[in-house]
Amino acid sequence: MNFKEKFKEGIISAKDFNREDIEYILKRANEMRDDKKYRDLLKGKILATLFFEPSTRTRLSFESAMIRLGGQIIGFHSGDVSSIKKGETLADTIRTVENYCDGIVIRHSLEGSALLAAKFSKVPVINAGSGSGEHPTQALLDLFTMVHEGLKLDGLNIGIMGDLKYGRTVHSLSILLSNFDVNIYFISPKELMLRNRDKDYLRQKEVKYKEIEKYRDILNVLDVLYVTRIQKERFADIEEYDRVKGFYIFTKDDLKETKDHFKLMHPLPRVDEISPEIDNSPKSIFFKQAYYGIPTRKAVLSELLSD
Amino acid sequence: MNFKEKFKEGIISAKDFNREDIEYILKRANEMRDDKKYRDLLKGKILATLFFEPSTRTRLSFESAMIRLGGQIIGFHSGDVSSIKKGETLADTIRTVENYCDGIVIRHSLEGSALLAAKFSKVPVINAGSGSGEHPTQALLDLFTMVHEGLKLDGLNIGIMGDLKYGRTVHSLSILLSNFDVNIYFISPKELMLRNRDKDYLRQKEVKYKEIEKYRDILNVLDVLYVTRIQKERFADIEEYDRVKGFYIFTKDDLKETKDHFKLMHPLPRVDEISPEIDNSPKSIFFKQAYYGIPTRKAVLSELLSD
Amino acid sequence: MNFKEKFKEGIISAKDFNREDIEYILKRANEMRDDKKYRDLLKGKILATLFFEPSTRTRLSFESAMIRLGGQIIGFHSGDVSSIKKGETLADTIRTVENYCDGIVIRHSLEGSALLAAKFSKVPVINAGSGSGEHPTQALLDLFTMVHEGLKLDGLNIGIMGDLKYGRTVHSLSILLSNFDVNIYFISPKELMLRNRDKDYLRQKEVKYKEIEKYRDILNVLDVLYVTRIQKERFADIEEYDRVKGFYIFTKDDLKETKDHFKLMHPLPRVDEISPEIDNSPKSIFFKQAYYGIPTRKAVLSELLSD
Repeated sequence: MNFKEKFKEGIISAKDFNREDIEYILKRANEMRDDKKYRDLLKGKILATLFFEPSTRTRLSFESAMIRLGGQIIGFHSGDVSSIKKGETLADTIRTVENYCDGIVIRHSLEGSALLAAKFSKVPVINAGSGSGEHPTQALLDLFTMVHEGLKLDGLNIGIMGDLKYGRTVHSLSILLSNFDVNIYFISPKELMLRNRDKDYLRQKEVKYKEIEKYRDILNVLDVLYVTRIQKERFADIEEYDRVKGFYIFTKDDLKETKDHFKLMHPLPRVDEISPEIDNSPKSIFFKQAYYGIPTRKAVLSELLSD
Repeated sequence: MNFKEKFKEGIISAKDFNREDIEYILKRANEMRDDKKYRDLLKGKILATLFFEPSTRTRLSFESAMIRLGGQIIGFHSGDVSSIKKGETLADTIRTVENYCDGIVIRHSLEGSALLAAKFSKVPVINAGSGSGEHPTQALLDLFTMVHEGLKLDGLNIGIMGDLKYGRTVHSLSILLSNFDVNIYFISPKELMLRNRDKDYLRQKEVKYKEIEKYRDILNVLDVLYVTRIQKERFADIEEYDRVKGFYIFTKDDLKETKDHFKLMHPLPRVDEISPEIDNSPKSIFFKQAYYGIPTRKAVLSELLSD
Repeated sequence: MNFKEKFKEGIISAKDFNREDIEYILKRANEMRDDKKYRDLLKGKILATLFFEPSTRTRLSFESAMIRLGGQIIGFHSGDVSSIKKGETLADTIRTVENYCDGIVIRHSLEGSALLAAKFSKVPVINAGSGSGEHPTQALLDLFTMVHEGLKLDGLNIGIMGDLKYGRTVHSLSILLSNFDVNIYFISPKELMLRNRDKDYLRQKEVKYKEIEKYRDILNVLDVLYVTRIQKERFADIEEYDRVKGFYIFTKDDLKETKDHFKLMHPLPRVDEISPEIDNSPKSIFFKQAYYGIPTRKAVLSELLSD
């Protein structure tokens, strides 16, 4: 079964991707870097971006990708300006909006939201962030970035650091990586460690991983460190937050400890996890992730929406 | 005088439509179901969607229809993010925005808003909901749905149920139906009965109607039941609301009492007026209304905005 | 150095324009009044409209101009629905969004915002209002309006009235006018006079100006009066506001005192500075400013974004 056929109902979870699927979509993403070739591929198609939770980055990235394929956008940017306020269920919203478009991108605060949407929708649904659950297209663009910034996925030593409990990006990324021969170092304060269900999944896929609290000791081992934002608001005790915060400001001095080909990533937005003084280092590729997001999402949209 | 000429200033009230106008626009709507034929009709045209009150359904429906005709959209989704907050009058907003577009769709909390907008605008204005007043394109798509789901307007026995006092959809629908030989059963708690001015209009047009409080007795008479949301917030007395609520949960058992060709409609969003257990019945056509909305609005836009 | 080359990083301040630049862009704006000729000029280009502060007029004007050149739009309308809430810096937002688009239009509450954005952006940035600082494209369209409504910039006697302290439109307009042989009458209550730094700039450019409190005495001298909104919220003392307010309701009687070719302008929105009874006078050209804004912004966008 080819990619188009397999994902015809949408992109809901990273768990649906095997190695072949990933390699295929990264190949397609690379082809999508040619701006001219596919500029009319989705002419006449409409993508609905339903953002029940606010987002700058992900929404604008999808919209830009859709436009660069010749398609058009409708949507809303906040649960406030929608029928939700009048008490409508998600299922009803989907069964209405599917009549207005050829595909739906959804971000919602509940974990099962994208799956539910796909169940009710006649058109393909793309999960652009389902609560603390998943964010599969972010993980795809992260892999695409790694590959094109000189890293090899097989044999990769990757640190994933920050809010591993609630971070949906982290979940989808580690799931996708489970299809490759990687060593993962999960770095977080105890309170924000990966949930058991996520670890169970990785164990079942025989992924080699370690959980640690400090990143400095392993800096010279890593090929890439993927930093995520620690959400201050999760902490009941502000002193605990302050204790933790100290571990996670990646600085110029840290960068010196890393290998020559080391890369530093972050899904953004960041607050203070990475010191701005190293923004211009060739090892810092977090703004390039935004760049690689466009061809990755063009690839996803072209598979799901083209005739 | 043809439709285009008659409505060149816009679509403000269902009262402006005679039988011939309705039949013409429904015929055009049917032609608009061909997605390919008119895809460049409004190329180069811009529609401004000015939603001073939030809306998912209506706004996205208009925007999708405009895009499917090759046109483009500008607009805002909430009175919060506009010059209104700075104290601007509606007349000034219109005399500004008319310079940026070829047509305006407006939703506003005041009843006379669309009429006022049309008075000041050089470009056609479409009323997408004026307070408790009217919502004429919803009524047009409702008729289009009925006709294409096998109902005949002449001789139709229709129940219209729910908030008949404040429901703008109900007002426009009953006004359009007054051009046909229909029997209307207005079903509502006393507090939410049709206003006198609306009844005066129907009497003057010699419409056969009855006002009742319970729908169960007439279920076997109806060809179609049009349910609307009862807005809890209108009730001063919560006990009164609770008393009323019981009448208006249409269930599987109710459906059994209906004729074979009976259809159940709702402009949506619904809260709990229709039990989800019957969503998949062929008699339930409320999600199809969203589908029929696109060709109906394409027809309206093409008449008003094409050269 | 031609315009395109000089402004390749964007339009940030009116101070960057010399007389030749202004004359060039007004000439281009005039050519842009032909709707057909340039309708595909920016096909395939994406403009990001980043409005951290709400706006109807300016945002919709830019979006309409972009669409009329064949381009497309992404963006957000309020700082509320963006990553800013998560603590992201403006520099990070820009370095992300630049990957999604070919140009950025930014409105932000801080004076240095547009300059900062341009410093970090790979794509051209247009300042659509930076706090109390500047709003250069508004000033360009104001000049374009004057010229095409029969006024000559050299020798012009212009009154600029209202909030001269915080009004960004006023700042950019007087800076642009400093390139011509004009007499400016700055009319405001003492509390809202031009800031010293703005006056220093004008003196250095040898602009002839006077500061006065009442406009009635000079009405017969003026070729044009440019009125701006007095923002009630600036006044600590409501009595002071009430005292001031009286000066600034321009009425029918005022209009009678003016020259035959006199023109009354306002960037809008207005509250009550201009009495609606004179809206239809040929001397009132404030709604025409919105009209002239489209070709002016088309000219700016075409210079910055075309290949």
